Amino acid sequence: MIQIAIVGYGNVGACAADAVRLAPDMELRCIVTRTESRVPLSLRPLWVSDIQNIRAYGEVDVAILCLPSRLCPATAETLLQAGISTVDSYDIHPEIWAQKCRLDAAAKAGNAAAIIAAGWDPGSDSLLRALMEAMAPRGITYTDFGPGMSMGHSVAAKAIPGVENALSMTMPIGAGVHRRMVYVQLSPDASFDTVAQAIRSDPYFIHDETHVIQVADVKAMQDMGHGVQMTRRGVSGSAHNQTLEYTMRINNPALTGQILTSAARAVTKQLPGCYTLIEIPLIDLLPGGKEELVRRLV
Amino acid sequence: MIQIAIVGYGNVGACAADAVRLAPDMELRCIVTRTESRVPLSLRPLWVSDIQNIRAYGEVDVAILCLPSRLCPATAETLLQAGISTVDSYDIHPEIWAQKCRLDAAAKAGNAAAIIAAGWDPGSDSLLRALMEAMAPRGITYTDFGPGMSMGHSVAAKAIPGVENALSMTMPIGAGVHRRMVYVQLSPDASFDTVAQAIRSDPYFIHDETHVIQVADVKAMQDMGHGVQMTRRGVSGSAHNQTLEYTMRINNPALTGQILTSAARAVTKQLPGCYTLIEIPLIDLLPGGKEELVRRLV
Repeated sequence: MIQIAIVGYGNVGACAADAVRLAPDMELRCIVTRTESRVPLSLRPLWVSDIQNIRAYGEVDVAILCLPSRLCPATAETLLQAGISTVDSYDIHPEIWAQKCRLDAAAKAGNAAAIIAAGWDPGSDSLLRALMEAMAPRGITYTDFGPGMSMGHSVAAKAIPGVENALSMTMPIGAGVHRRMVYVQLSPDASFDTVAQAIRSDPYFIHDETHVIQVADVKAMQDMGHGVQMTRRGVSGSAHNQTLEYTMRINNPALTGQILTSAARAVTKQLPGCYTLIEIPLIDLLPGGKEELVRRLV
Repeated sequence: MIQIAIVGYGNVGACAADAVRLAPDMELRCIVTRTESRVPLSLRPLWVSDIQNIRAYGEVDVAILCLPSRLCPATAETLLQAGISTVDSYDIHPEIWAQKCRLDAAAKAGNAAAIIAAGWDPGSDSLLRALMEAMAPRGITYTDFGPGMSMGHSVAAKAIPGVENALSMTMPIGAGVHRRMVYVQLSPDASFDTVAQAIRSDPYFIHDETHVIQVADVKAMQDMGHGVQMTRRGVSGSAHNQTLEYTMRINNPALTGQILTSAARAVTKQLPGCYTLIEIPLIDLLPGGKEELVRRLV
């Protein structure tokens, strides 16, 4: 059995805990989060307040990091150096390569392994982009997101001073271009114009058409549904008009928590180092023996 | 540069030759086929009549087998034992595991590597089935094929005595169930009833609703277009109704030839042994450096 720690207990952490407890080959060893009250009563016996004490209830093989992206690399580095493998859904695309190199060194130092960017984008969508390119090497792949709440963008908007709560909806307008609809609930003394300007100039939003809308109650609008449509039209050999499409409609934190959990299984099968999902065999994500999986899936 | 031999020069072989010549990291070293006249004039200088002479024009790293499935394992075994890596699109699903074990031994004996079942089903569809299961471990995946010509089934129908030419169309009737429409052109002395009965009881057709129709000219009906719709509805953690869909509409031999070519790249990066596509990292299928690929695709 793979011994799992969940680090961070927001929406994704709670979903990862569900996925781990339903996995046939995993045991949930502990949940690391500062605030005990966030952990449901049934899981309170597994609560740990600080990653320094992550081994309080026994050895941990893999820590599933369910933290905001910006906190993942430093936490992963600490755990890897201590010999605990990590998986995360770090989603700041331009920084993935640099953070992978950083965690690769930490993993090798600690004789552990890491999988970075193992959510759905980056994550499962990355696998589809790689596969589609192997099938039709020349062409264009478009990834259209939504409609749905972007967790990363909502967290980024919430971090703006004066914002009490925020919901960033991603609206696909085609060919990989998106509109951001950001619903904000302000603290009493905040200026809407200042907040709206700060959101529009944040790195998460600056490249997209972004609309900021003030609302009284963000919670009443929250739905965790999200979607992707990915399309590649391209050329296989000298044959044009090859058309490959992938569409999903999903509960967002549940899918992220599940992919992180599948990646936690895969990370135990890798040599020391840090990997993205496109660098590991897909069979490693699944429980069961190789013969059964090849017979059933290939 | 990876030195490639193409073994077999039917529809798939011709498409694989196109894909190899367009790959930035490959050189087409030779084409192995019994009948010289099948090879277009521009490629005649690369013609070899027999795999015994596969090294006639220089060293070969990988042989891309573009033969009927039933001929692939023995040919691959011979080449692997001689130290030449192989890829094939062997598509007899229930036999894949046994043939993989056979080629694994041959590959290790010859210090080479093989990728088996590297077309689109088995092949890229297998990757999607594995990925979808990692994203939603409980649920059902349906693979619906067509409408389109099945190369494997057409070859099987053509092998029936009395059949001069045959075209087997796969018609999706939903939930992974298919109807086979088999158009046959008979030799003058053949009995249609005998042929129809032989086709319906062939292992390729016996499990499906199969209609056999006599026509005067099969060639006039041939279109290489094909398609797949794959759907998984399942559960991530405790979240139900996760909906994942994949659809493609493609030139069939062109896609098979391209995936074989991408697999020929990947096979050079594997340790000795035989693999299915779900056992190798997707990044290995693509040309270019790891940093560039991770930055662009993850």
